[in-house]
Amino acid sequence: MSSKKVIELFYDVVSPYSWLGFEIMCRYRTVWNVELKLRPAFLGGVMQGSDNRPPGMVPNKMVYMSNDLQRLSKYFEVPLSPPSNPAEAMFIKGSLSAMRFVTAVQKREKDGDKQVEQVSRELWRRIWNQDKDITEPASLSEAAKKAGLSDDEIKAAMESYNTKEIKDKLKSTTQDALDYGSFGFPMIVCHIDGKPEMYFGSDRFELMAHRLGEKWLGPVPHKAAAKL
Amino acid sequence: MSSKKVIELFYDVVSPYSWLGFEIMCRYRTVWNVELKLRPAFLGGVMQGSDNRPPGMVPNKMVYMSNDLQRLSKYFEVPLSPPSNPAEAMFIKGSLSAMRFVTAVQKREKDGDKQVEQVSRELWRRIWNQDKDITEPASLSEAAKKAGLSDDEIKAAMESYNTKEIKDKLKSTTQDALDYGSFGFPMIVCHIDGKPEMYFGSDRFELMAHRLGEKWLGPVPHKAAAKL
Repeated sequence: MSSKKVIELFYDVVSPYSWLGFEIMCRYRTVWNVELKLRPAFLGGVMQGSDNRPPGMVPNKMVYMSNDLQRLSKYFEVPLSPPSNPAEAMFIKGSLSAMRFVTAVQKREKDGDKQVEQVSRELWRRIWNQDKDITEPASLSEAAKKAGLSDDEIKAAMESYNTKEIKDKLKSTTQDALDYGSFGFPMIVCHIDGKPEMYFGSDRFELMAHRLGEKWLGPVPHKAAAKL
Repeated sequence: MSSKKVIELFYDVVSPYSWLGFEIMCRYRTVWNVELKLRPAFLGGVMQGSDNRPPGMVPNKMVYMSNDLQRLSKYFEVPLSPPSNPAEAMFIKGSLSAMRFVTAVQKREKDGDKQVEQVSRELWRRIWNQDKDITEPASLSEAAKKAGLSDDEIKAAMESYNTKEIKDKLKSTTQDALDYGSFGFPMIVCHIDGKPEMYFGSDRFELMAHRLGEKWLGPVPHKAAAKL
Protein backbone atom coordinates (compact mmCIF):
# COMPACT_ATOMS: atom_id res chain seq x y z
CA MET A 1 0.00 0.00 0.00
CA SER A 2 1.36 3.37 -1.00
CA SER A 3 1.54 6.17 1.58
CA LYS A 4 1.58 8.74 -1.18
CA LYS A 5 -1.21 11.28 -1.33
CA VAL A 6 -3.24 10.92 -4.50
CA ILE A 7 -3.85 13.88 -6.80
CA GLU A 8 -6.32 13.63 -9.66
CA LEU A 9 -5.92 16.06 -12.53
CA PHE A 10 -9.00 16.60 -14.72
CA TYR A 11 -8.12 18.28 -18.00
CA ASP A 12 -9.00 18.80 -21.63
CA VAL A 13 -6.47 19.71 -24.32
CA VAL A 14 -8.80 22.45 -25.59
CA SER A 15 -8.07 24.42 -22.41
CA PRO A 16 -4.85 26.47 -22.22
CA TYR A 17 -5.05 26.87 -18.43
CA SER A 18 -5.26 23.07 -18.30
CA TRP A 19 -1.95 22.87 -20.14
CA LEU A 20 -0.33 25.09 -17.51
CA GLY A 21 -1.80 22.97 -14.69
CA PHE A 22 -0.80 19.75 -16.46
CA GLU A 23 2.85 20.75 -16.88
CA ILE A 24 3.14 21.99 -13.29
CA MET A 25 1.65 18.77 -11.93
CA CYS A 26 3.85 16.63 -14.20
CA ARG A 27 6.88 18.53 -12.86
CA TYR A 28 5.82 18.25 -9.23
CA ARG A 29 4.87 14.54 -9.35
CA THR A 30 8.58 13.81 -8.90
CA VAL A 31 9.18 16.67 -6.44
CA TRP A 32 6.31 16.08 -4.02
CA ASN A 33 5.52 12.76 -2.39
CA VAL A 34 2.33 12.28 -4.38
CA GLU A 35 0.75 9.94 -6.90
CA LEU A 36 -0.61 11.87 -9.89
CA LYS A 37 -3.63 10.41 -11.67
CA LEU A 38 -4.27 11.88 -15.10
CA ARG A 39 -8.02 12.16 -15.75
CA PRO A 40 -8.54 13.26 -19.38
CA ALA A 41 -12.16 14.48 -19.65
CA PHE A 42 -14.43 16.56 -21.88
CA LEU A 43 -14.64 20.24 -20.95
CA GLY A 44 -17.73 20.78 -23.12
CA GLY A 45 -19.60 18.23 -21.01
CA VAL A 46 -18.52 19.90 -17.77
CA MET A 47 -19.59 23.34 -18.98
CA GLN A 48 -22.97 22.00 -20.03
CA GLY A 49 -23.41 19.83 -16.93
CA SER A 50 -22.62 22.73 -14.57
CA ASP A 51 -24.56 25.35 -16.57
CA ASN A 52 -21.39 27.43 -16.93
CA ARG A 53 -20.47 29.52 -19.93
CA PRO A 54 -17.03 30.18 -21.42
CA PRO A 55 -15.23 33.26 -20.04
CA GLY A 56 -14.55 34.36 -23.61
CA MET A 57 -18.14 35.54 -23.86
CA VAL A 58 -17.20 38.63 -21.83
CA PRO A 59 -15.03 40.78 -24.14
CA ASN A 60 -12.88 42.36 -21.38
CA LYS A 61 -12.26 38.90 -19.93
CA MET A 62 -11.23 37.59 -23.36
CA VAL A 63 -8.63 40.36 -23.75
CA TYR A 64 -7.41 39.86 -20.18
CA MET A 65 -7.08 36.09 -20.59
CA SER A 66 -5.04 36.50 -23.72
CA ASN A 67 -2.54 38.75 -21.89
CA ASP A 68 -2.66 36.60 -18.76
CA LEU A 69 -1.87 33.44 -20.76
CA GLN A 70 1.03 35.14 -22.51
CA ARG A 71 2.54 36.24 -19.18
CA LEU A 72 1.94 32.89 -17.49
CA SER A 73 3.30 30.99 -20.46
CA LYS A 74 6.62 32.79 -20.11
CA TYR A 75 6.73 32.53 -16.31
CA PHE A 76 5.68 28.85 -16.29
CA GLU A 77 7.91 27.99 -19.26
CA VAL A 78 5.07 26.38 -21.20
CA PRO A 79 5.12 27.41 -24.87
CA LEU A 80 1.52 28.63 -25.21
CA SER A 81 0.61 30.50 -28.36
CA PRO A 82 -3.06 31.00 -29.23
CA PRO A 83 -4.49 29.61 -32.46
CA SER A 84 -5.23 32.22 -35.14
CA ASN A 85 -8.97 31.76 -34.57
CA PRO A 86 -9.39 30.75 -30.90
CA ALA A 87 -13.20 30.80 -30.96
CA GLU A 88 -13.30 28.46 -33.96
CA ALA A 89 -10.63 26.15 -32.51
CA MET A 90 -12.23 26.00 -29.07
CA PHE A 91 -15.95 26.24 -29.63
CA ILE A 92 -16.64 25.14 -33.20
CA LYS A 93 -14.02 22.46 -33.83
CA GLY A 94 -13.66 21.58 -30.15
CA SER A 95 -11.95 18.61 -28.54
CA LEU A 96 -14.43 15.73 -28.46
CA SER A 97 -12.48 13.46 -30.86
CA ALA A 98 -9.18 14.47 -29.32
CA MET A 99 -10.30 13.60 -25.79
CA ARG A 100 -11.80 10.32 -26.99
CA PHE A 101 -8.45 9.54 -28.57
CA VAL A 102 -6.56 10.38 -25.36
CA THR A 103 -9.05 8.17 -23.50
CA ALA A 104 -8.38 5.31 -25.94
CA VAL A 105 -4.62 5.70 -25.41
CA GLN A 106 -5.10 5.68 -21.65
CA LYS A 107 -7.37 2.62 -21.81
CA ARG A 108 -4.72 0.64 -23.69
CA GLU A 109 -1.73 1.77 -21.67
CA LYS A 110 -0.95 -0.83 -19.05
CA ASP A 111 2.29 0.31 -17.50
CA GLY A 112 2.11 3.82 -16.06
CA ASP A 113 0.85 6.84 -17.95
CA LYS A 114 3.80 8.03 -20.05
CA GLN A 115 1.84 7.61 -23.30
CA VAL A 116 -1.28 9.43 -22.15
CA GLU A 117 0.96 12.21 -20.82
CA GLN A 118 2.90 12.54 -24.08
CA VAL A 119 -0.13 12.29 -26.37
CA SER A 120 -1.93 14.95 -24.35
CA ARG A 121 1.12 17.21 -24.54
CA GLU A 122 1.42 16.72 -28.32
CA LEU A 123 -2.25 17.59 -28.80
CA TRP A 124 -1.80 20.74 -26.71
CA ARG A 125 1.23 21.58 -28.80
CA ARG A 126 -0.86 21.26 -31.96
CA ILE A 127 -3.76 23.47 -30.88
CA TRP A 128 -2.03 25.82 -28.40
CA ASN A 129 1.37 26.21 -29.99
CA GLN A 130 1.31 25.29 -33.68
CA ASP A 131 -2.22 26.38 -34.67
CA LYS A 132 -2.91 22.91 -36.04
CA ASP A 133 -6.06 20.83 -36.22
CA ILE A 134 -6.86 18.29 -33.47
CA THR A 135 -10.14 16.93 -34.88
CA GLU A 136 -9.16 14.86 -37.93
CA PRO A 137 -7.98 11.22 -37.65
CA ALA A 138 -4.71 12.14 -39.37
CA SER A 139 -4.10 14.86 -36.76
CA LEU A 140 -4.60 12.40 -33.93
CA SER A 141 -2.30 9.74 -35.34
CA GLU A 142 0.33 12.37 -36.08
CA ALA A 143 0.22 13.53 -32.45
CA ALA A 144 0.50 9.92 -31.28
CA LYS A 145 3.49 9.35 -33.53
CA LYS A 146 5.26 12.43 -32.16
CA ALA A 147 4.43 11.16 -28.68
CA GLY A 148 6.45 8.03 -29.44
CA LEU A 149 3.68 5.43 -29.81
CA SER A 150 4.43 2.51 -32.10
CA ASP A 151 2.48 2.01 -35.33
CA ASP A 152 0.60 -0.89 -33.74
CA GLU A 153 -0.32 1.19 -30.72
CA ILE A 154 -1.51 4.04 -32.92
CA LYS A 155 -3.56 1.65 -35.08
CA ALA A 156 -5.22 0.18 -32.01
CA ALA A 157 -6.10 3.61 -30.61
CA MET A 158 -7.40 4.78 -34.00
CA GLU A 159 -9.63 1.71 -34.22
CA SER A 160 -11.06 2.12 -30.76
CA TYR A 161 -11.52 5.84 -30.09
CA ASN A 162 -14.96 5.98 -31.68
CA THR A 163 -16.30 2.82 -30.01
CA LYS A 164 -19.08 2.93 -27.43
CA GLU A 165 -16.68 1.66 -24.77
CA ILE A 166 -14.34 4.64 -25.16
CA LYS A 167 -17.18 7.16 -25.52
CA ASP A 168 -18.66 5.81 -22.29
CA LYS A 169 -15.32 5.97 -20.49
CA LEU A 170 -14.88 9.64 -21.43
CA LYS A 171 -18.45 10.37 -20.33
CA SER A 172 -17.84 8.64 -17.04
CA THR A 173 -14.61 10.58 -16.32
CA THR A 174 -16.42 13.80 -17.21
CA GLN A 175 -19.23 12.82 -14.84
CA ASP A 176 -16.65 12.14 -12.11
CA ALA A 177 -15.41 15.72 -12.53
CA LEU A 178 -18.98 17.05 -12.27
CA ASP A 179 -19.60 14.87 -9.20
CA TYR A 180 -16.58 16.49 -7.53
CA GLY A 181 -18.25 19.84 -8.26
CA SER A 182 -16.31 20.92 -11.34
CA PHE A 183 -17.45 23.85 -13.47
CA GLY A 184 -14.36 24.09 -15.67
CA PHE A 185 -10.81 22.76 -16.15
CA PRO A 186 -8.22 22.19 -14.99
CA MET A 187 -9.63 20.78 -11.80
CA ILE A 188 -7.14 19.25 -9.44
CA VAL A 189 -8.45 17.02 -6.66
CA CYS A 190 -6.05 16.43 -3.77
CA HIS A 191 -6.94 13.59 -1.45
CA ILE A 192 -5.86 14.74 1.99
CA ASP A 193 -6.74 12.88 5.18
CA GLY A 194 -9.33 10.84 3.31
CA LYS A 195 -11.09 13.93 1.99
CA PRO A 196 -11.02 15.31 -1.57
CA GLU A 197 -9.98 18.96 -1.85
CA MET A 198 -10.79 20.64 -5.15
CA TYR A 199 -8.56 23.24 -6.77
CA PHE A 200 -9.87 24.91 -9.89
CA GLY A 201 -7.50 26.58 -12.32
CA SER A 202 -3.74 26.94 -12.38
CA ASP A 203 -3.30 29.45 -9.58
CA ARG A 204 -3.57 27.57 -6.30
CA PHE A 205 -0.31 25.59 -6.31
CA GLU A 206 1.21 27.46 -3.38
CA LEU A 207 -1.88 26.83 -1.26
CA MET A 208 -2.03 23.23 -2.49
CA ALA A 209 1.60 22.66 -1.45
CA HIS A 210 0.79 24.13 1.96
CA ARG A 211 -2.20 21.80 2.37
CA LEU A 212 -0.16 18.78 1.20
CA GLY A 213 2.66 19.58 3.61
CA GLU A 214 4.99 20.07 0.65
CA LYS A 215 7.09 22.98 -0.62
CA TRP A 216 6.14 25.27 -3.50
CA LEU A 217 9.29 26.13 -5.45
CA GLY A 218 7.64 28.15 -8.18
CA PRO A 219 6.47 26.93 -11.59
CA VAL A 220 9.87 25.51 -12.61
CA PRO A 221 10.91 23.49 -9.54
CA HIS A 222 14.06 21.93 -10.99
CA LYS A 223 15.51 25.34 -11.70
CA ALA A 224 14.63 26.57 -8.21
CA ALA A 225 16.09 23.41 -6.65
CA ALA A 226 19.32 23.84 -8.60
CA LYS A 227 19.71 27.32 -7.12
CA LEU A 228 19.38 26.13 -3.49
CA MET B 1 10.16 62.60 -8.09
CA SER B 2 9.63 59.13 -6.69
CA SER B 3 11.28 56.14 -8.35
CA LYS B 4 8.72 53.83 -6.83
CA LYS B 5 6.57 51.77 -9.16
CA VAL B 6 2.89 52.67 -8.82
CA ILE B 7 0.26 50.02 -8.14
CA GLU B 8 -3.43 50.87 -8.36
CA LEU B 9 -5.85 48.63 -6.49
CA PHE B 10 -9.47 48.73 -7.67
CA TYR B 11 -11.81 47.18 -5.12
CA ASP B 12 -15.30 47.07 -3.66
CA VAL B 13 -16.07 46.00 -0.08
CA VAL B 14 -18.87 43.75 -1.37
CA SER B 15 -16.22 41.46 -2.87
CA PRO B 16 -14.48 38.93 -0.60
CA TYR B 17 -11.64 38.28 -3.06
CA SER B 18 -11.09 42.06 -3.02
CA TRP B 19 -10.57 41.89 0.74
CA LEU B 20 -7.86 39.27 0.26
CA GLY B 21 -6.17 41.35 -2.44
CA PHE B 22 -6.49 44.51 -0.35
CA GLU B 23 -4.82 43.00 2.73
CA ILE B 24 -2.01 41.47 0.70
CA MET B 25 -1.32 44.77 -1.05
CA CYS B 26 -1.50 46.71 2.22
CA ARG B 27 1.07 44.28 3.68
CA TYR B 28 3.37 44.45 0.66
CA ARG B 29 3.27 48.24 0.27
CA THR B 30 5.92 48.36 2.99
CA VAL B 31 7.80 45.27 1.77
CA TRP B 32 8.11 46.11 -1.93
CA ASN B 33 9.45 49.37 -3.28
CA VAL B 34 6.05 50.48 -4.57
CA GLU B 35 3.49 53.20 -4.14
CA LEU B 36 0.03 51.75 -3.56
CA LYS B 37 -2.95 53.78 -4.76
CA LEU B 38 -6.27 52.70 -3.30
CA ARG B 39 -9.05 53.02 -5.92
CA PRO B 40 -12.40 52.30 -4.24
CA ALA B 41 -14.93 51.66 -7.03
CA PHE B 42 -18.35 50.12 -7.65
CA LEU B 43 -18.29 46.45 -8.65
CA GLY B 44 -21.91 46.55 -9.83
CA GLY B 45 -20.96 49.18 -12.40
CA VAL B 46 -18.01 47.14 -13.62
CA MET B 47 -20.10 43.99 -14.01
CA GLN B 48 -22.73 45.91 -15.96
CA GLY B 49 -20.20 47.87 -18.01
CA SER B 50 -18.32 44.72 -19.03
CA ASP B 51 -21.44 42.57 -19.55
CA ASN B 52 -20.17 40.08 -16.98
CA ARG B 53 -22.35 38.10 -14.59
CA PRO B 54 -21.58 37.05 -11.01
CA PRO B 55 -19.90 33.65 -10.64
CA GLY B 56 -22.49 32.72 -8.02
CA MET B 57 -24.99 32.12 -10.82
CA VAL B 58 -23.28 28.78 -11.53
CA PRO B 59 -24.16 26.50 -8.59
CA ASN B 60 -20.94 24.40 -8.66
CA LYS B 61 -18.91 27.61 -8.79
CA MET B 62 -20.81 29.00 -5.80
CA VAL B 63 -20.01 25.92 -3.71
CA TYR B 64 -16.38 25.96 -4.85
CA MET B 65 -15.95 29.65 -4.07
CA SER B 66 -17.30 29.20 -0.59
CA ASN B 67 -14.71 26.45 0.12
CA ASP B 68 -11.98 28.35 -1.70
CA LEU B 69 -12.61 31.49 0.38
CA GLN B 70 -12.56 29.52 3.61
CA ARG B 71 -9.20 27.95 2.71
CA LEU B 72 -7.69 31.20 1.47
CA SER B 73 -8.97 33.12 4.50
CA LYS B 74 -7.00 30.81 6.77
CA TYR B 75 -3.90 30.76 4.60
CA PHE B 76 -3.93 34.53 4.01
CA GLU B 77 -4.84 35.27 7.64
CA VAL B 78 -7.81 37.44 6.67
CA PRO B 79 -10.86 36.70 8.87
CA LEU B 80 -13.42 36.07 6.12
CA SER B 81 -16.73 34.61 7.16
CA PRO B 82 -19.66 34.74 4.73
CA PRO B 83 -22.87 36.57 5.65
CA SER B 84 -25.82 34.31 6.49
CA ASN B 85 -27.48 35.28 3.21
CA PRO B 86 -24.68 36.06 0.74
CA ALA B 87 -26.97 36.59 -2.26
CA GLU B 88 -29.06 39.14 -0.35
CA ALA B 89 -26.00 40.90 1.07
CA MET B 90 -24.17 41.02 -2.26
CA PHE B 91 -26.86 41.40 -4.91
CA ILE B 92 -29.93 42.87 -3.21
CA LYS B 93 -28.48 45.15 -0.55
CA GLY B 94 -25.22 45.69 -2.42
CA SER B 95 -22.49 48.23 -1.80
CA LEU B 96 -23.44 51.43 -3.61
CA SER B 97 -23.85 53.57 -0.44
CA ALA B 98 -20.84 51.95 1.17
CA MET B 99 -18.57 52.71 -1.78
CA ARG B 100 -19.91 56.27 -1.99
CA PHE B 101 -19.07 56.64 1.68
CA VAL B 102 -15.54 55.29 1.16
CA THR B 103 -15.19 57.70 -1.76
CA ALA B 104 -16.30 60.60 0.46
CA VAL B 105 -13.73 59.62 3.09
CA GLN B 106 -11.02 59.42 0.44
CA LYS B 107 -12.02 62.78 -1.02
CA ARG B 108 -11.67 64.48 2.36
CA GLU B 109 -8.45 62.75 3.43
CA LYS B 110 -5.51 64.99 2.68
CA ASP B 111 -2.55 63.29 4.23
CA GLY B 112 -2.05 59.74 2.94
CA ASP B 113 -4.76 57.09 2.86
CA LYS B 114 -4.87 55.64 6.37
CA GLN B 115 -8.54 56.59 6.80
CA VAL B 116 -9.73 55.19 3.50
CA GLU B 117 -7.78 52.00 4.27
CA GLN B 118 -9.28 51.64 7.74
CA VAL B 119 -12.85 52.53 6.76
CA SER B 120 -12.70 50.00 3.89
CA ARG B 121 -11.41 47.34 6.27
CA GLU B 122 -14.15 48.07 8.81
CA LEU B 123 -16.82 47.80 6.11
CA TRP B 124 -15.38 44.46 4.98
CA ARG B 125 -15.38 43.33 8.60
CA ARG B 126 -19.07 44.21 8.86
CA ILE B 127 -20.25 42.38 5.74
CA TRP B 128 -17.62 39.63 5.43
CA ASN B 129 -16.96 38.84 9.06
CA GLN B 130 -19.78 40.04 11.32
CA ASP B 131 -22.79 39.58 9.02
CA LYS B 132 -23.78 43.20 9.58
CA ASP B 133 -25.45 45.75 7.33
CA ILE B 134 -23.36 48.16 5.23
CA THR B 135 -26.20 50.09 3.58
CA GLU B 136 -27.74 52.23 6.38
CA PRO B 137 -26.25 55.60 7.39
CA ALA B 138 -25.84 54.33 10.96
CA SER B 139 -23.81 51.36 9.67
CA LEU B 140 -21.49 53.65 7.74
CA SER B 141 -20.86 56.03 10.62
CA GLU B 142 -20.30 53.10 12.97
CA ALA B 143 -17.66 51.70 10.59
CA ALA B 144 -16.01 55.12 10.38
CA LYS B 145 -15.95 55.42 14.16
CA LYS B 146 -14.28 52.01 14.51
CA ALA B 147 -11.83 53.12 11.84
CA GLY B 148 -10.76 55.96 14.13
CA LEU B 149 -12.29 58.96 12.36
CA SER B 150 -13.21 61.91 14.55
CA ASP B 151 -16.84 62.94 15.01
CA ASP B 152 -16.24 65.96 12.78
CA GLU B 153 -14.70 63.83 10.07
CA ILE B 154 -17.59 61.36 10.22
CA LYS B 155 -20.13 64.18 10.09
CA ALA B 156 -18.47 65.65 7.01
CA ALA B 157 -18.39 62.29 5.21
CA MET B 158 -22.03 61.59 6.15
CA GLU B 159 -23.05 64.96 4.74
CA SER B 160 -21.21 64.51 1.48
CA TYR B 161 -21.51 60.88 0.44
CA ASN B 162 -24.82 61.38 -1.37
CA THR B 163 -23.79 64.56 -3.19
CA LYS B 164 -23.40 64.68 -6.94
CA GLU B 165 -19.69 65.37 -6.55
CA ILE B 166 -19.08 62.10 -4.70
CA LYS B 167 -21.42 60.08 -6.93
CA ASP B 168 -19.51 61.39 -9.94
CA LYS B 169 -16.15 60.59 -8.38
CA LEU B 170 -17.20 56.98 -7.75
CA LYS B 171 -18.54 56.71 -11.30
CA SER B 172 -15.31 58.08 -12.67
CA THR B 173 -13.13 55.62 -10.69
CA THR B 174 -15.38 52.79 -11.85
CA GLN B 175 -15.01 54.00 -15.42
CA ASP B 176 -11.23 54.08 -14.98
CA ALA B 177 -11.38 50.39 -14.00
CA LEU B 178 -13.46 49.61 -17.10
CA ASP B 179 -11.08 51.61 -19.27
CA TYR B 180 -8.22 49.42 -18.00
CA GLY B 181 -10.28 46.42 -19.15
CA SER B 182 -11.76 45.32 -15.83
CA PHE B 183 -14.58 42.75 -15.67
CA GLY B 184 -14.53 42.22 -11.89
CA PHE B 185 -12.60 43.02 -8.70
CA PRO B 186 -10.06 43.11 -7.29
CA MET B 187 -8.17 44.48 -10.23
CA ILE B 188 -4.58 45.43 -9.58
CA VAL B 189 -2.81 47.61 -12.11
CA CYS B 190 0.99 47.62 -11.90
CA HIS B 191 2.74 50.37 -13.80
CA ILE B 192 5.93 48.80 -15.10
CA ASP B 193 8.23 50.56 -17.58
CA GLY B 194 5.51 53.08 -18.34
CA LYS B 195 2.96 50.40 -19.20
CA PRO B 196 -0.03 49.31 -17.10
CA GLU B 197 -0.20 45.56 -16.37
CA MET B 198 -3.54 44.28 -15.15
CA TYR B 199 -3.90 41.50 -12.61
CA PHE B 200 -7.42 40.31 -11.90
CA GLY B 201 -8.21 38.48 -8.66
CA SER B 202 -6.08 37.55 -5.67
CA ASP B 203 -3.97 34.80 -7.20
CA ARG B 204 -1.24 36.43 -9.26
CA PHE B 205 0.96 37.92 -6.52
CA GLU B 206 3.90 35.62 -7.22
CA LEU B 207 3.86 36.54 -10.91
CA MET B 208 3.35 40.21 -10.00
CA ALA B 209 6.40 40.14 -7.72
CA HIS B 210 8.41 38.56 -10.52
CA ARG B 211 7.33 41.28 -12.96
CA LEU B 212 8.03 44.03 -10.41
CA GLY B 213 11.50 42.63 -9.68
CA GLU B 214 10.45 42.03 -6.08
CA LYS B 215 10.24 38.94 -3.86
CA TRP B 216 7.03 37.04 -3.06
CA LEU B 217 7.22 35.86 0.54
CA GLY B 218 3.76 34.33 0.74
CA PRO B 219 0.56 35.97 1.96
CA VAL B 220 1.96 36.94 5.38
CA PRO B 221 5.32 38.53 4.50
CA HIS B 222 6.28 39.70 8.00
CA LYS B 223 6.06 36.19 9.33
CA ALA B 224 8.12 34.85 6.43
CA ALA B 225 10.69 37.62 6.88
CA ALA B 226 10.98 36.85 10.60
CA LYS B 227 11.86 33.26 9.76
CA LEU B 228 14.71 34.19 7.41
